[in-house]
Amino acid sequence: MELHRLQNVKLSDVTINDPFWNHYINLVETVILPFQWELINDRVEGAEKSYCMHNFRIACGDEKGEHLGTVFQDTDVAKWLEAVAYTLAKKPNKKLEALADGAIDLISRAQCPDGYLDTYFIITKQKRWSDLYEGHELYTAGHMIEAAVAYYEATGKRRFLDTVCRLADCIYRTFGREEGKIHGYPGHPEIELALIRLYRVTQEKRYLSLADYFIRERGKSPSYFLNEECRKTGNYIFPEFADFGLDYMMAQKPLQEQTTVEGHAVRAAYLLSGMADVAYEERDDTLLKQCDALWNNITQKKMYITGSIGSASYGERFTGNYDLPNNTNYSESCATVGLAQFSNRMFQITHSGKYMDTVEQALYNTLLAGIALDGKHFFYVNPLEVIPEVAEHNPTMRHIKTMRQQWFGVACCPPNIARTLASLSNYIYAYDEEALYVNLFIQSCVKVPVKGGNLRFCLHADYPNSGHIEIQSDSTAEAPFSLAVRKPAYSAKYQVCVNGSKVDCTQRDGYLFIKRMWKREDLVSIDFDVQFRFVYCNPHCSDNIGKTALMKGPVVYCLEEADNGSHLAGIYADTEAPVHSAFVKGLPEESGSATFSGCRTVMPQKDNPLYGLEKPTYEACTLTAVPYALWNNRGKGEMRVWMNDGSPMFHRNWRG
Amino acid sequence: MELHRLQNVKLSDVTINDPFWNHYINLVETVILPFQWELINDRVEGAEKSYCMHNFRIACGDEKGEHLGTVFQDTDVAKWLEAVAYTLAKKPNKKLEALADGAIDLISRAQCPDGYLDTYFIITKQKRWSDLYEGHELYTAGHMIEAAVAYYEATGKRRFLDTVCRLADCIYRTFGREEGKIHGYPGHPEIELALIRLYRVTQEKRYLSLADYFIRERGKSPSYFLNEECRKTGNYIFPEFADFGLDYMMAQKPLQEQTTVEGHAVRAAYLLSGMADVAYEERDDTLLKQCDALWNNITQKKMYITGSIGSASYGERFTGNYDLPNNTNYSESCATVGLAQFSNRMFQITHSGKYMDTVEQALYNTLLAGIALDGKHFFYVNPLEVIPEVAEHNPTMRHIKTMRQQWFGVACCPPNIARTLASLSNYIYAYDEEALYVNLFIQSCVKVPVKGGNLRFCLHADYPNSGHIEIQSDSTAEAPFSLAVRKPAYSAKYQVCVNGSKVDCTQRDGYLFIKRMWKREDLVSIDFDVQFRFVYCNPHCSDNIGKTALMKGPVVYCLEEADNGSHLAGIYADTEAPVHSAFVKGLPEESGSATFSGCRTVMPQKDNPLYGLEKPTYEACTLTAVPYALWNNRGKGEMRVWMNDGSPMFHRNWRG
Repeated sequence: MELHRLQNVKLSDVTINDPFWNHYINLVETVILPFQWELINDRVEGAEKSYCMHNFRIACGDEKGEHLGTVFQDTDVAKWLEAVAYTLAKKPNKKLEALADGAIDLISRAQCPDGYLDTYFIITKQKRWSDLYEGHELYTAGHMIEAAVAYYEATGKRRFLDTVCRLADCIYRTFGREEGKIHGYPGHPEIELALIRLYRVTQEKRYLSLADYFIRERGKSPSYFLNEECRKTGNYIFPEFADFGLDYMMAQKPLQEQTTVEGHAVRAAYLLSGMADVAYEERDDTLLKQCDALWNNITQKKMYITGSIGSASYGERFTGNYDLPNNTNYSESCATVGLAQFSNRMFQITHSGKYMDTVEQALYNTLLAGIALDGKHFFYVNPLEVIPEVAEHNPTMRHIKTMRQQWFGVACCPPNIARTLASLSNYIYAYDEEALYVNLFIQSCVKVPVKGGNLRFCLHADYPNSGHIEIQSDSTAEAPFSLAVRKPAYSAKYQVCVNGSKVDCTQRDGYLFIKRMWKREDLVSIDFDVQFRFVYCNPHCSDNIGKTALMKGPVVYCLEEADNGSHLAGIYADTEAPVHSAFVKGLPEESGSATFSGCRTVMPQKDNPLYGLEKPTYEACTLTAVPYALWNNRGKGEMRVWMNDGSPMFHRNWRG
Repeated sequence: MELHRLQNVKLSDVTINDPFWNHYINLVETVILPFQWELINDRVEGAEKSYCMHNFRIACGDEKGEHLGTVFQDTDVAKWLEAVAYTLAKKPNKKLEALADGAIDLISRAQCPDGYLDTYFIITKQKRWSDLYEGHELYTAGHMIEAAVAYYEATGKRRFLDTVCRLADCIYRTFGREEGKIHGYPGHPEIELALIRLYRVTQEKRYLSLADYFIRERGKSPSYFLNEECRKTGNYIFPEFADFGLDYMMAQKPLQEQTTVEGHAVRAAYLLSGMADVAYEERDDTLLKQCDALWNNITQKKMYITGSIGSASYGERFTGNYDLPNNTNYSESCATVGLAQFSNRMFQITHSGKYMDTVEQALYNTLLAGIALDGKHFFYVNPLEVIPEVAEHNPTMRHIKTMRQQWFGVACCPPNIARTLASLSNYIYAYDEEALYVNLFIQSCVKVPVKGGNLRFCLHADYPNSGHIEIQSDSTAEAPFSLAVRKPAYSAKYQVCVNGSKVDCTQRDGYLFIKRMWKREDLVSIDFDVQFRFVYCNPHCSDNIGKTALMKGPVVYCLEEADNGSHLAGIYADTEAPVHSAFVKGLPEESGSATFSGCRTVMPQKDNPLYGLEKPTYEACTLTAVPYALWNNRGKGEMRVWMNDGSPMFHRNWRG
């Protein structure tokens, strides 16, 4: 098979100037990263201690003390460094870079002579690699490697990269098919995709072969996990997870034989990302097809309309096909990041737009829902339906927070959101010799290298408030080159003009190819259909039967108590009446809210009987919906994505 | 206040001959009690070990070994003995009595010289009364006392009664307001109601005063629980429950100040039963009103239509008002037994029919759902909606079993169901000097003591298949005496005839009083309205918005996959079309099934998109519903009580 992978445009070659997205992106540099630095140094009053830097100071002998925090506490600084790297790649920031260099110094000095690096095992002297099931050593190593590669690419400094090469070499000497090596693999994947990143930057084949080993060894019988040392000694990192089962980490059988994604959603997404990377590097068509099959299982059977995954809180995990409860789900922000990474990889390998449709859905909805407009409050868990009075009194929903939280003890999500926002242009653009792929319609200018120089384009849009996209050339090409603009699946209709004239252009795999000898000020304008639309869920999913969700472009809307009063469960949307754009108080103007008509169940007196013969009655009402990503920015209240579909009541009988 | 409590008719004075109920009642003597005896003696191959009798043998020195099983393992034999007692009270059974005497001998010999009796604390030598929060000593003592009182009443044998009097005296010397005594009270109530039973049979005032103390001390500030010994030593029985909070056991403030029931449903129901007992014995009108207020909170805000309670699995507990999820609830069989006990006490004290309406609902639905038709399989947890494919793959529902189980490690529910069935006539009849109260329309003959002799009546019914009830006098009265027949709240219409002639009779608090000088063969016939009816839930409960449940008399119906195919979530009931009686294969004829019309969502191809613009379509269908109590007697499959109400689609627009 002839596969060639699209490349990311260098972060420094993209300037994002979209008011909506820039609000969030700027928060990373101005609020999130400085705040997280204070956090990992335990200097935030009132916040739970992180102990992250504390552990490194002890591991490298600067201080005496015990390891504190969880076993994978090191990853907090790794993800912080990765986000710092992306920020520095875009523009210099001496202060951040100095902080990062200091952290890297500490990390490098904590490393053992043989390259091993994990403060938990170094400090506690617990036996290395004795609990791959839950010990998270390879997961932690993976995040270190990702950070170091990003930092090297941003700054050109080699110290951190050299450190993680020694770490990767240590792992390479320890794990593998060869006799004398451990035949294990990680309970929590991440090392696989990290090794590929390291391979791509160093060109050291052993990192690829180690990633290959981890992917292909996984799930072989007899299971390594069932016979590893902690099972014999009883010395588990997390005894309470010891019986989660092999499917919890997709290790119940070889990945090639699995037909559904299972277990912990973040683990699965990271694993599949690494699997796609290996499939590409080895040009293994069969493995790539399997990645696609599992991606389809996620997106067509197990993904919320908001682009989130993980239907169950217990185990933060996938459940059965079509099981998508709206008020008890986990839908972790980190899992959405993982899904976006996996999908982006699949797009870059296959050049197919369906993957970026999912990325767009994930970023515009769950990723942004994870962060408050103030940049200081975060959701880890992203339900599609919240009634605070219920959620706060029912421990089945104890993972559901009715307000975004400042930070958490296990602080995975905020830095994961930060590193995604800081590297957002990797999702907007990709390129090869022949084309620049434009995936997301986020206002920005891009410089793309072509034979004999660079081409520059600027994208103008007020998307998805408007479906009108303009891309202007800011340079002159010396050879024909294509703009490949993603045609979102939701937009059946579209129109493309170049310099004011309608053109027919090739459509391939979800992309519109506009090929020409670009001249300065050439203007491509495209109109997609971003009318409000009511969407329905496949009735195999019992939770959404008789319900509808409002969307506009990739944006999923929700009802909030702030606009509609309480008892949202009793609201019926008239899906055949027009939906109008609207502005609501307390949200940014560009956020794009909506009004439409419907009816609501008349609420009886508080003391009416719990059960009775009286049928409910309804009253007409006007409803207001806001983008799901922006919910809970105006105080605590009810929220609901899937509304009762009132159309059979309003307009038609059941015979349709 | 002039309160007088109605009395139970002696178990030996009621003969139940109802084919439907006798099936279950007979199972107690022929299947459940013999099987449980084998179980508590660890002689059932393949079953989890109980260790219950093992512990007693060790505690009394017959064997050497350790305590095994949970801290309240002793209650299994207590509940078994209580059920045996009720069985013996009805008719002799030498074999069962001999087994019981043997167990009682062992129990009595295990008792400490000072009266203390709890094999866990005796064997482990863990400090007595050091963890009232979760130690369950007073709970265990309560069950022993209940069993002993029942056994004394059934057999006249005093040995067990004397044993528990020494136990109660030991507790009396240990707990109380007086200086030098422990000022604590149980985390798991049960001792309160047990002490009242002991007081009533022994007339020893100290047992009443001890029950009074436990009820009134509860929740005082500063909390005893927060300062008890286990909190200081860290030596908890169940460390994982240590932070469940005081409201988990309704000890967050004095009972008089609580406005809602909270926490563990069984604890709450047992506590309220004891509170009602104390209120009656002390003629404390205020305390009784508080019992009624809390009973109202349960039945009007927190009770499932099937008469079950406990909306959350985590903590097996109550949640907020109107929070009644149908597929993640706990609804423990034991909690329904507790609710029936509490309600029956409130009825006996106030003579008000509303309490027995709830008892009827609880017994006909959740209690019977707890036991399979074969008497060998049990549900602990009673959801109102099950999709096996979903429940078996979503750990949020890991407490939900898709088939009844043979027995469990903590075997609370089967013996609790057994003791309720064995003493069922206590729910059917009650009496005072002036009237025999007829609460449940279960075929039976009763002998009721009146001044100067006994009166005998026989009740004939095929209820609720038919609402026609006949009560025939089988004796001649020497003074006027009333039959007080409960008029179920659901039956707005009714007609009473005596000897064929319509009579007007006094209606008071839900009872029809038929007062006369009874002659042999006097025949009262009453017709209640037991037409099928579609019931609606108060829309404050978001889970049942737009839904309806089918009932007939107290019986709640459900759809099962066996009759209707899968995807029950997509079914819409036509609530305005007639409902017909029907028979279904595989269930007893007298169970009374129903058919009615509706429509179902047409299921798309398996591979259709998860989300799309296509509206669902429907097709007409005939639906079959069976009594909820009988679900899951025909193999694994979907079940659903609350169906989508199709009437707005079928017949009317939303303006009603």
